[in-house]
Amino acid sequence: MSKKLTERSKDYSKWYNELVVQADLAENSAVRGCMVIKPYGYAIWEKMQAKLDSMFKATGHQNAYFPLFVPKSLFEAEEKNAEGFAKECAVVTHYRLKTDPDDASKLIVDPEAKLEEELVVRPTSEAIIWNTYKGWIQSYRDLPILVNQWANVVRWEMRTRLFLRTAEFLWQEGHTAHATKKEALRETELMNDIYAEFAEEFMAIPVIKGKKTEQEKFAGAEETYCIEALMQDGKALQAGTSHFLGQNFAKAFDVKYTSKEGKQELVWATSWGVSTRLMGALVMTHSDDKGLVLPPKLAPNQVVIVPIYKNEDQLKAISEVANKLAKDLRASGISVKYDDRDTHKPGWKFAQYELQGVPVRLAIGPKDLEKGSVELARRDTLTKEFIDQSEVINKVRALMVEIQDTLFQKALSFRDQHISEVDTFDDFKKVLKEKGGFISAHWDGTSETEQKIKELTKATIRCIPFDGKPQVGNCVLTGKASKQRVLFAKAY
Amino acid sequence: MSKKLTERSKDYSKWYNELVVQADLAENSAVRGCMVIKPYGYAIWEKMQAKLDSMFKATGHQNAYFPLFVPKSLFEAEEKNAEGFAKECAVVTHYRLKTDPDDASKLIVDPEAKLEEELVVRPTSEAIIWNTYKGWIQSYRDLPILVNQWANVVRWEMRTRLFLRTAEFLWQEGHTAHATKKEALRETELMNDIYAEFAEEFMAIPVIKGKKTEQEKFAGAEETYCIEALMQDGKALQAGTSHFLGQNFAKAFDVKYTSKEGKQELVWATSWGVSTRLMGALVMTHSDDKGLVLPPKLAPNQVVIVPIYKNEDQLKAISEVANKLAKDLRASGISVKYDDRDTHKPGWKFAQYELQGVPVRLAIGPKDLEKGSVELARRDTLTKEFIDQSEVINKVRALMVEIQDTLFQKALSFRDQHISEVDTFDDFKKVLKEKGGFISAHWDGTSETEQKIKELTKATIRCIPFDGKPQVGNCVLTGKASKQRVLFAKAY
Repeated sequence: MSKKLTERSKDYSKWYNELVVQADLAENSAVRGCMVIKPYGYAIWEKMQAKLDSMFKATGHQNAYFPLFVPKSLFEAEEKNAEGFAKECAVVTHYRLKTDPDDASKLIVDPEAKLEEELVVRPTSEAIIWNTYKGWIQSYRDLPILVNQWANVVRWEMRTRLFLRTAEFLWQEGHTAHATKKEALRETELMNDIYAEFAEEFMAIPVIKGKKTEQEKFAGAEETYCIEALMQDGKALQAGTSHFLGQNFAKAFDVKYTSKEGKQELVWATSWGVSTRLMGALVMTHSDDKGLVLPPKLAPNQVVIVPIYKNEDQLKAISEVANKLAKDLRASGISVKYDDRDTHKPGWKFAQYELQGVPVRLAIGPKDLEKGSVELARRDTLTKEFIDQSEVINKVRALMVEIQDTLFQKALSFRDQHISEVDTFDDFKKVLKEKGGFISAHWDGTSETEQKIKELTKATIRCIPFDGKPQVGNCVLTGKASKQRVLFAKAY
Repeated sequence: MSKKLTERSKDYSKWYNELVVQADLAENSAVRGCMVIKPYGYAIWEKMQAKLDSMFKATGHQNAYFPLFVPKSLFEAEEKNAEGFAKECAVVTHYRLKTDPDDASKLIVDPEAKLEEELVVRPTSEAIIWNTYKGWIQSYRDLPILVNQWANVVRWEMRTRLFLRTAEFLWQEGHTAHATKKEALRETELMNDIYAEFAEEFMAIPVIKGKKTEQEKFAGAEETYCIEALMQDGKALQAGTSHFLGQNFAKAFDVKYTSKEGKQELVWATSWGVSTRLMGALVMTHSDDKGLVLPPKLAPNQVVIVPIYKNEDQLKAISEVANKLAKDLRASGISVKYDDRDTHKPGWKFAQYELQGVPVRLAIGPKDLEKGSVELARRDTLTKEFIDQSEVINKVRALMVEIQDTLFQKALSFRDQHISEVDTFDDFKKVLKEKGGFISAHWDGTSETEQKIKELTKATIRCIPFDGKPQVGNCVLTGKASKQRVLFAKAY
């Protein structure tokens, strides 16, 4: 059983690390930087996957699977990509271990089993996929290709944190090929919109849609669109990205198609992805000092029922009521766990499900049997009430909607209170230090200024928001002319 | 579009390789031994996954995710496992590439980024998982642990074939921990039974349940149960395995629990898995010289509708009927593709869907509009008939059941005709050469004899069947006493 969590106000970072482990979401493994996603955490991820997957399919995408390994030469083919982040990666150089001749209990790498060409464990799959698409695309009839992959990827990060930054993580990566620039741009926007819809409607996390600056965009992309969320400590978190890749990969891998008019044309590309990082965003947006708070749409168990009893007869009578309620709730499409284990006390169970963020807890004791009542506790508000057993189904159904909405509104209100318009660099620094959140400020549009601000404050431009209105102003650092405010923040 | 397939009777192996590629299931990649699973192939795999996953969950299992990498030392901890097959594997030795100082267009492995301890890309996850379970298990209250993982694994195979044997493949691996031997044995059997049920009821592949001999079992296991299928060329294919691991991994990783009585006890283990190899079994069991034949329960599109038209008006009128049929079929839970693309001719579409094994094809032309008919073609029997449009829904619904059953019965009949009881080694060799299939023969129970027979004939003992009756006899090679027949075959 868990010990008390560090309070958010005392040490937000420590609170997060403790919560992820204590709520049974994930833990560190024997491999530096790689995590174990535990069954409870994985069940939440599966719910995310299922919803995202259905959204991808509803918009015409299909899944496929490409190799884990990318030959080193394919990275060289895509120069910008390699320049971007391919270098910190896991490199396979050999294909065999053998028993150590000096110590039969040890294994050593067999020097005779050296690969002719090293293989890189994919940090992302543009290179291997576009090398494949070359064989799939000849004619305009072969386009568009709308493919997604659910996979593990590896980036050799030096400082890692569960879900937020791990050497290996799980994600989906969409890779599409189009005949025209217009179509590819539309796809880039569509997928960013799908991410935003998923974040807001399922994760109950409000996000700001926008595009990245030259400095912050994916190295291989012409444009990177993104959704940005705000965590409770005032730091931003990039929750998803959708890249318009132009013809960069088509050029690098020589992917052309014959148009209706019989001309050879380079193919246009997009790629887009979200990862297990979303789990970190989910935890940090809604949870409190008592533990996880889950939106009903992503909770593995939306309702838990705990019996309170002193003897077998009481348990039997309570179980009859509980099983009936569970059955009726399930018939309403609500997931229910009835925890009648005799190995743990009710108090332990209450604490456990609070820690694990189960949206609604029902408790039934001997007095409830007499009165025909149950105790209903909401995880989000921590409120409790006794209700009639006959009201449970309707009440819980309504709560599933209400809790989902309450969490979103609460996060939205927090987020909106933490967007500060500032016009001087002193205010910029002051707000960043004292309040945090997004800072809406004018910027002169140069990477130099962006870099300078980053060095001075650790804040980066999270995005140039799509809904930002043109507004003439002066750059918060240089005073040079600016046409639109952008959003700065410190970020995960 | 595809060229004609090599006939099975001419070159079964070539037929298989061509079919997998031409039907858009998978193809070889730029990485030796690694395949690309194409969208159509992956859609079949997803259906398998979804069904298996629901069967696992219905029996109390949960999914989780463990690291891709296994530190070399963990393999050393489990000696037998390492001895078994851990040696032919992908070894990560470095974590960074850098630009070649002699050629800026090249990347080289950064010699300064050498790992202190090499990491092995998981060939299977017993070691990393049991090293994790050590932290999860203290008391009998923590047991059983019923966890499954969907993952990619890598084994450095020298000779690879799409789906059947690839360096990287996708699979699920269940890893369970139990308080008692009895419970672990029950789990081993349960999961083998689930695999058998899945193979027979969903893949329409009859299988024989049995256990492996000492020589053929998984190196880390005390017992390996398996399901064995028979391909059309008379070779057997191991379609799934379920291992009773005894206390081997608990000993290797020191995993103990405190019993109710307060004693420290070693934990009992099982592991079980099926892989994308099942895709190979599916292709080889049912398909014919015209292409893939899919059982309805696993077909991404159970029905395809092709319009036959000469002008836009005809297409419009046909589409009205087709869309209505598609809608009604979908309402009956049947997946339908209406292929009204104007980029491909009906003849091309007919050939394509035949090659891709769509169970039922409906064609609608101008004459059908007049008569209120459609042409219905069955992929499994290659029969065609005209039926009234009003009959389509009921007919197709019935066919989904009938085709599934027909495929199973056909495969069962073939399999049963290819189990030959033999009592002399001459007959053994003759049957193996002329007829193939399973050979039911007496065996003296020694690994020496098993090995000798393998060397002489390439046939191995596929399993000691569970439904085999005790029968006194003499070993087909040595003439020594034997208590039961076992099944030999050449195998994939």
